Amino acid sequence: MFFASDNAGPAHPQIMQAMLDANRGYALPYGADAIMERVTARIREVFEAPEAAIHLVATGTAANSLALACMCQPFETVFCSPVAHIHEDECNAPEFYTGGAKLTLVGDSDKMTPDSLRAAFAAEETRGVHGPQRGPVSITQATERGRVYTVDEIAALTAVSRDFGQQAHLDGARFANALVALGCTPSEMTWKAGIDAVSFGGTKNGCPGVEAVIFFDPGKAWEFELRRKRGAHLFSKHRYLSAQMEAYLTDDLWLTSARAANANCRRLADGLAGVPGVRMLHDPQANIIFADMPRAVHKRLQDGGAVYYLLAGDADSGDPDELLPSRMVTDWSIGDDQIDRFVDLAKG
Amino acid sequence: MFFASDNAGPAHPQIMQAMLDANRGYALPYGADAIMERVTARIREVFEAPEAAIHLVATGTAANSLALACMCQPFETVFCSPVAHIHEDECNAPEFYTGGAKLTLVGDSDKMTPDSLRAAFAAEETRGVHGPQRGPVSITQATERGRVYTVDEIAALTAVSRDFGQQAHLDGARFANALVALGCTPSEMTWKAGIDAVSFGGTKNGCPGVEAVIFFDPGKAWEFELRRKRGAHLFSKHRYLSAQMEAYLTDDLWLTSARAANANCRRLADGLAGVPGVRMLHDPQANIIFADMPRAVHKRLQDGGAVYYLLAGDADSGDPDELLPSRMVTDWSIGDDQIDRFVDLAKG
Amino acid sequence: MFFASDNAGPAHPQIMQAMLDANRGYALPYGADAIMERVTARIREVFEAPEAAIHLVATGTAANSLALACMCQPFETVFCSPVAHIHEDECNAPEFYTGGAKLTLVGDSDKMTPDSLRAAFAAEETRGVHGPQRGPVSITQATERGRVYTVDEIAALTAVSRDFGQQAHLDGARFANALVALGCTPSEMTWKAGIDAVSFGGTKNGCPGVEAVIFFDPGKAWEFELRRKRGAHLFSKHRYLSAQMEAYLTDDLWLTSARAANANCRRLADGLAGVPGVRMLHDPQANIIFADMPRAVHKRLQDGGAVYYLLAGDADSGDPDELLPSRMVTDWSIGDDQIDRFVDLAKG
Amino acid sequence: MFFASDNAGPAHPQIMQAMLDANRGYALPYGADAIMERVTARIREVFEAPEAAIHLVATGTAANSLALACMCQPFETVFCSPVAHIHEDECNAPEFYTGGAKLTLVGDSDKMTPDSLRAAFAAEETRGVHGPQRGPVSITQATERGRVYTVDEIAALTAVSRDFGQQAHLDGARFANALVALGCTPSEMTWKAGIDAVSFGGTKNGCPGVEAVIFFDPGKAWEFELRRKRGAHLFSKHRYLSAQMEAYLTDDLWLTSARAANANCRRLADGLAGVPGVRMLHDPQANIIFADMPRAVHKRLQDGGAVYYLLAGDADSGDPDELLPSRMVTDWSIGDDQIDRFVDLAKG
Repeated sequence: MFFASDNAGPAHPQIMQAMLDANRGYALPYGADAIMERVTARIREVFEAPEAAIHLVATGTAANSLALACMCQPFETVFCSPVAHIHEDECNAPEFYTGGAKLTLVGDSDKMTPDSLRAAFAAEETRGVHGPQRGPVSITQATERGRVYTVDEIAALTAVSRDFGQQAHLDGARFANALVALGCTPSEMTWKAGIDAVSFGGTKNGCPGVEAVIFFDPGKAWEFELRRKRGAHLFSKHRYLSAQMEAYLTDDLWLTSARAANANCRRLADGLAGVPGVRMLHDPQANIIFADMPRAVHKRLQDGGAVYYLLAGDADSGDPDELLPSRMVTDWSIGDDQIDRFVDLAKG
Repeated sequence: MFFASDNAGPAHPQIMQAMLDANRGYALPYGADAIMERVTARIREVFEAPEAAIHLVATGTAANSLALACMCQPFETVFCSPVAHIHEDECNAPEFYTGGAKLTLVGDSDKMTPDSLRAAFAAEETRGVHGPQRGPVSITQATERGRVYTVDEIAALTAVSRDFGQQAHLDGARFANALVALGCTPSEMTWKAGIDAVSFGGTKNGCPGVEAVIFFDPGKAWEFELRRKRGAHLFSKHRYLSAQMEAYLTDDLWLTSARAANANCRRLADGLAGVPGVRMLHDPQANIIFADMPRAVHKRLQDGGAVYYLLAGDADSGDPDELLPSRMVTDWSIGDDQIDRFVDLAKG
Repeated sequence: MFFASDNAGPAHPQIMQAMLDANRGYALPYGADAIMERVTARIREVFEAPEAAIHLVATGTAANSLALACMCQPFETVFCSPVAHIHEDECNAPEFYTGGAKLTLVGDSDKMTPDSLRAAFAAEETRGVHGPQRGPVSITQATERGRVYTVDEIAALTAVSRDFGQQAHLDGARFANALVALGCTPSEMTWKAGIDAVSFGGTKNGCPGVEAVIFFDPGKAWEFELRRKRGAHLFSKHRYLSAQMEAYLTDDLWLTSARAANANCRRLADGLAGVPGVRMLHDPQANIIFADMPRAVHKRLQDGGAVYYLLAGDADSGDPDELLPSRMVTDWSIGDDQIDRFVDLAKG
Repeated sequence: MFFASDNAGPAHPQIMQAMLDANRGYALPYGADAIMERVTARIREVFEAPEAAIHLVATGTAANSLALACMCQPFETVFCSPVAHIHEDECNAPEFYTGGAKLTLVGDSDKMTPDSLRAAFAAEETRGVHGPQRGPVSITQATERGRVYTVDEIAALTAVSRDFGQQAHLDGARFANALVALGCTPSEMTWKAGIDAVSFGGTKNGCPGVEAVIFFDPGKAWEFELRRKRGAHLFSKHRYLSAQMEAYLTDDLWLTSARAANANCRRLADGLAGVPGVRMLHDPQANIIFADMPRAVHKRLQDGGAVYYLLAGDADSGDPDELLPSRMVTDWSIGDDQIDRFVDLAKG
């Protein structure tokens, strides 16, 4: 009953098998392997972007930080949600990779609105050389709260950044979960909606560790390669990254896995809806839900061995009715039996 | 007949199998996996260093840059050979990770001498606040020219750095190749010889991509963890790194593979010694050799499909006797048949 | 009628004379001049801090950024007000000098409270290696809104940072204005209240360009010197900085000038209180006031040649009663006649 | 008898007077002062460069580092002499400001040659993404050894950098001394010879502290302004920088002072030529000479109170004939009497 994160589950067997298959003979290092050629072609096809520059790295933080470093000068600021991974969970990696750019927090929720974004852009307006200069917006899809921007919402945000002459980055650590939730195409959710660069996640959706960075304008390709190498993120035995990504994109495995993860989340939410005293924060859209649960429910789950996060510390008040805010994440692999057992435990 | 690099061959099947075996159920992310606990214990045992801090990253450049960032202030300079990987092959990653420290090139060969190192340290002496301040020495073992420092040579270099109050780093991308060449223990080649931190390579010796950073004084452990995260080198699905390293160290696989790679190099060198006109630069010590070969020999090898590097460009002079400087690297996997075929081709 | 900033007025004649006096013969460069020896002794005396490390730079941004760089690791975050100069007006200089640390904005006003600071510190608590680590607090005295922390308020803030094991920096660009407002001693406003390092401003209070950085614990002195040099802020002809600071501290010129500036502000505020429709934001404490003034008043002032800032842009609505938020700063040199003329103009 | 450096002498009285004159009333801050407008016009006129972007900073290290930061990416390397100020005397400031670029040392003397520069550029050729990428060349005029590049020599160096697609920076801390030595125009020594950006020094030639950075292509102006602010080098009370530079350029004061300094050096060299046992390293070209002098001579000078640098430490061997390498710098202000007394002392 592991609901703590989608980065703790197993990798999909087809992806592990692809790594094994790639382990034959000699392969050119540093991204010049034959598999990478196919990966590039495949991602371009999937995104209907025949010119896009495609590069692989092993962590989402690397994908985000390197992408932003190519889009943002050190005297600029990146606009993002206050709960964005780049702000809260990367230990200043974006600041490091951009050479000391700032992050400007937009609004007070996981989803930026065009109004809050426009206000934030405008606020940097009057200080000339003294304040940080405007840089790109970074949009997280799906958000850290498990919500999904509609295509129109993304387009509205990128329209604001474009009004101010700035680019738009999509942190797609959970790209696939959002995509299948929306039922749109990758191009609709990205460049057709004004996105310039994407961190296209694999790790949270069944890969051992691979993310693609996609620039729809290939003009940044060489700079990205240099920054990747300088950041120590260029793999010599690159074929094992390529192989993961190739398998991930083969036979729609990435979509199938994301649908499974989202369906697991729906099953969990539906189950919890029947538990007295439990209050869901949002209707589940992707594979994360937040719920306030009575301490008594939490205690039963803990005693039963369930693993998930409480958002605040848990100084036991002793009050069984005290509501504890909790987060649960479902990956592709968690079985119905696990979910049902969790719900049964919660019911008591 | 692939002799271009030891990063282009296949990973060892036992290591791939270990990754498969690790792919079961849920595991705590970010280095908290159970396999990592065993890896830490095992490396401490191998190095006879029960207090050492052990961390894994996926590239050698990350290992070097992060280790140096913990040992060197941005206003200091790292002392290294002019052909050190950190100087020539990391696209300013050490400068990036240290926040802009300098690299001071010592002597004019792959091996620093105590005299050249002392002279370089002393030369930074007289400028007070104006010049870069002295920082650590970084020693590459085996060197980029395939030579191996003796234990006494390492101790003599670290004695110099200690005289100036500085620490010593060992770039051990080919640690195992050097170790089996010397026939000493890991502790003798490192902390007993005055080394403070080691980049302990796995990738060039049969792993898909894993390096350990070892600090013998664990006081830097937490800073390293923060710098690793900030550098985007902390893997969420860390178990796949741990599994590689565990298999690498099981049943002496790392030593067996290094012995194989070195023996392959010896076989290649012995074969080439019999080729008229070919001149070896050094007697092979690890798994790299440099040879000047007549253009005619080179042409036969190229035509036969052999892969290796020429050190200078190859503007064809037409002169069959012109000597071309070349580098050949043998990995653990290259078969005797490949080596023998290469030598036969060279003989013509 | 110049009320735009205290950095636009003339330097005090005694300070200019001191620079002239210093311009005789040869002087050791880079801070080794004899005047600097006297400045160090004098600042130690003024602050009752016989061990303090004292260094001069030419800009307030340099003082703040270099001080913070010695107090904050690149993976940490500095706590400050959302309107702090270090956040709004230094074009990412603190991020640059710290190597990419973050700034965490505390509360929503110019003055942090112990509660808001404690909440901000606590919020960084639960993310382990993932979030930025806690760094120092930076307190601006007087604030960018012209308000002054009491000694107790400062002590309460530094107590919070000390609870979390962190240091406290005081941005004293308007140190003297605050000091004379409180009527306390420099030591009471700083180290006795828990402050570890001070940017002690001269430029806004009658110097052409000099600020002292004071570390009460001299252990950081050498690191500061190296960071100052590396930041290109070490003056070769340092005596002209020393001479400014010496004159500034001679015969209480710094206090006299600050008292004059504050009194000028009081006179201005008292005058504006009699202008119908003008609303003061705060009672004046130092030498800055904020006032909402009817457009008609603003127009008269503009037409009369008065210079000051409107906080929002001025898209003329045509409505003479529309309230425009404005900021006025008084320096030591502005004459009563200028102030009275300004008030008369406002009255119409 | 002060010959240690040209940064220890007094500022020229006309320049001090100009600062006094500037100290009247209110002036717009941050470079918007009226004097700066005139300075910009004047430098454009002096350099016959009506489009050039002109900015002032207070230190030579700031001028160099900020100029290079606008010309060089963090993954590139700057080509310079091994004795360049940017390499030896700026405590890693260029590395800091460029975000971690490298400095590649060209040749083994104070003057680069086209051949040594071409070889250095070519050597970075073959490593693709792995090595640092080529960046600009930085030429010091006059050199740290007091020698002056001819216009043709400068043009030959910039031709090499242009061949590799790179720009050229001139570190002109002693620009005026070189210019009057050559007897050419500022444009001939800079943009007509292929220079893209100049650090135009004032501090070593009679100013308290001011340097202009000149970009002949104004496209970098805004980026420079942002980097200057972010580096904390934008002065609020900028008029005192402007006033220095205006006086410096008025009535050819800068040329007169440089001619005086060079003539002083010539007089010193001529005098020392008559001292038995003293060996000059170069014929004096600007205002620095290097001489090997017998210990007995050195002792007489020291005892007489002369101040200058020995290049190596002075562990007294007791041998009166031992030759000690020394450096002497003459500024504009040193009197003939001081020089003659120095020579007389040396003669014994």
